[in-house]
Amino acid sequence: MASLCFQSPSKPISYFQPKSNPSPPLFAKVSVFRCRASVQTLVAVEPEPVFVSVKTFAPATVANLGPGFDFLGCAVDGLGDHVTLRVDPSVRAGEVSISEITGTTTKLSTNPLRNCAGIAAIATMKMLGIRSVGLSLDLHKGLPLGSGLGSSAASAAAAAVAVNEIFGRKLGSDQLVLAGLESEAKVSGYHADNIAPAIMGGFVLIRNYEPLDLKPLRFPSDKDLFFVLVSPDFEAPTKKMRAALPTEIPMVHHVWNSSQAAALVAAVLEGDAVMLGKALSSDKIVEPTRAPLIPGMEAVKKAALEAGAFGCTISGAGPTAVAVIDSEEKGQVIGEKMVEAFWKVGHLKSVASVKKLDNVGARLVNSVSR
Amino acid sequence: MASLCFQSPSKPISYFQPKSNPSPPLFAKVSVFRCRASVQTLVAVEPEPVFVSVKTFAPATVANLGPGFDFLGCAVDGLGDHVTLRVDPSVRAGEVSISEITGTTTKLSTNPLRNCAGIAAIATMKMLGIRSVGLSLDLHKGLPLGSGLGSSAASAAAAAVAVNEIFGRKLGSDQLVLAGLESEAKVSGYHADNIAPAIMGGFVLIRNYEPLDLKPLRFPSDKDLFFVLVSPDFEAPTKKMRAALPTEIPMVHHVWNSSQAAALVAAVLEGDAVMLGKALSSDKIVEPTRAPLIPGMEAVKKAALEAGAFGCTISGAGPTAVAVIDSEEKGQVIGEKMVEAFWKVGHLKSVASVKKLDNVGARLVNSVSR
Repeated sequence: MASLCFQSPSKPISYFQPKSNPSPPLFAKVSVFRCRASVQTLVAVEPEPVFVSVKTFAPATVANLGPGFDFLGCAVDGLGDHVTLRVDPSVRAGEVSISEITGTTTKLSTNPLRNCAGIAAIATMKMLGIRSVGLSLDLHKGLPLGSGLGSSAASAAAAAVAVNEIFGRKLGSDQLVLAGLESEAKVSGYHADNIAPAIMGGFVLIRNYEPLDLKPLRFPSDKDLFFVLVSPDFEAPTKKMRAALPTEIPMVHHVWNSSQAAALVAAVLEGDAVMLGKALSSDKIVEPTRAPLIPGMEAVKKAALEAGAFGCTISGAGPTAVAVIDSEEKGQVIGEKMVEAFWKVGHLKSVASVKKLDNVGARLVNSVSR
Repeated sequence: MASLCFQSPSKPISYFQPKSNPSPPLFAKVSVFRCRASVQTLVAVEPEPVFVSVKTFAPATVANLGPGFDFLGCAVDGLGDHVTLRVDPSVRAGEVSISEITGTTTKLSTNPLRNCAGIAAIATMKMLGIRSVGLSLDLHKGLPLGSGLGSSAASAAAAAVAVNEIFGRKLGSDQLVLAGLESEAKVSGYHADNIAPAIMGGFVLIRNYEPLDLKPLRFPSDKDLFFVLVSPDFEAPTKKMRAALPTEIPMVHHVWNSSQAAALVAAVLEGDAVMLGKALSSDKIVEPTRAPLIPGMEAVKKAALEAGAFGCTISGAGPTAVAVIDSEEKGQVIGEKMVEAFWKVGHLKSVASVKKLDNVGARLVNSVSR
């Protein structure tokens, strides 16, 4: 069976499929998605498409950032997913069809209700009140599934932005994040620490969900910050990763982690890569429970720090390790040491890349006017 | 018995008093203070006094700031304690004597080993390696004891800075905070969220204790921020206040509070009083357990918010309530409503004041040269 992005098997899909009507209106299906916030139409008059087709890109994201578990994330440059979206008269009005999936994985479902890009596209169409136009979507995956780099969020972000662009950019970034959250809720729970930076770029602090309250944190453009991303050839045991999370936190660890998250935010706003790395590296709650589940992770962190990284932790739920440094050259040396440690200690092959912050987020790459 | 600042009765004082030597060297006594960090002499050559006498001031402080429990605090303008320190040949060399205590309370001990100002002065003298000069100290309390406004920290900060000034300012602010911590450890535990802002001014984030790692957070000087401080005539039950603190925190509350603390830091650095108030007001861990122990506190918070305050919480361990607003006039109206609520619901008289941030911290007020 084609997989729904990299949804955990513990979270079965269920959506409304009434027997009495073989082709219920698409929105009826969408409205029963198990999300905390239900998507509402936000535009008074149904917009017309301003383009025949658009191509969008959305970047990879690093969620958690150590002590920012479940409320901080950032986008990284140069890695990500592409969506090509076309007005397609052969597709039923108000619906989206997935024509093709290419790139790092093709085993994803082309059923739009079971595909991250499809779910986000449908949610965005619903917000725009699209009833008269059908769309077809091609997804090009640049990110591997289950790497801890926000693969599902990148697909969802690229799709949400593509729909918004093709209809003349009527929705703001918060609304696009809500559309993307419809997809994330299916994949890894209702958390915005990948989808928000995937759409908005830079660092984003998630302050609240009801109502959604996102705080972009701008890293100064004149300061240098590089992420060393090392992805091992290992499928992170998502279920175990979740089960490993403590439900109760000792007060002393709560105070520690909170103060480090606060320092991380100060470091971002002041452009202090050293302080940022130190804070990112200081998680006493989540990383200690998850790192032992990724072979070699503790040695990889040690190797990164010994090679001069300002800090290192698990990207998202892993297995990718992320280290922070202030130059690309140093980043490459650090990456080599991390790859070596994954191999020597974890017996895992891995691939390193050194990336800058992506300050733009999901964006239009090109478009064909009507 | 004169009280040691407002030390909890659950924390008895014990210091070394060897029977075989009726007058042991002062430093021997100091070295057994029950502090995690022991004070070391930090100056190679014993400095000579550059003044005959100095007068210093240290401001009141608001610790915790809601979700910043145990790691965030700030100094407020216009309230605080004064210390006058003199070179006194009648005092044994290397020792400090407390001559007089005046102001809001005079029931404090004049034994320097049992007085916040005395303990901090001795710790600072030890850091400076003072063996040849005796000092006498007058303490003028501007702050009431046990108000939640950092009364003990203000005395300690004023004393530490006075000693440093009289000997030519050889120590930096981090070292003075360590000296002040010797005193705080006796009074309310080894936490720096009052003493650090009392010495450094502004907002301070405490990142670590071993080694001490303090991060000043500068609120932009061109932005307006006012604190409405409402102190009820009520002795906060310190022991109950501490006992009320949970030892284990649900993960969901940890994530929530951490994200609010992170937002608070962003608000401070960006000078966003509205966001600051909202974050300060959002604690789900400490305030809900402590507020019910202060009669009327919940109603006071409600009254503050209804009167337009951006946020409201307990200052330190209480009983003072602190609200945040962007103008003095609005602050006065909010203060009246809070006083009214303390009276109507808590049946407590209270006093309101509207204060700005103190960006300077403990400082020299005047000095007499040799």
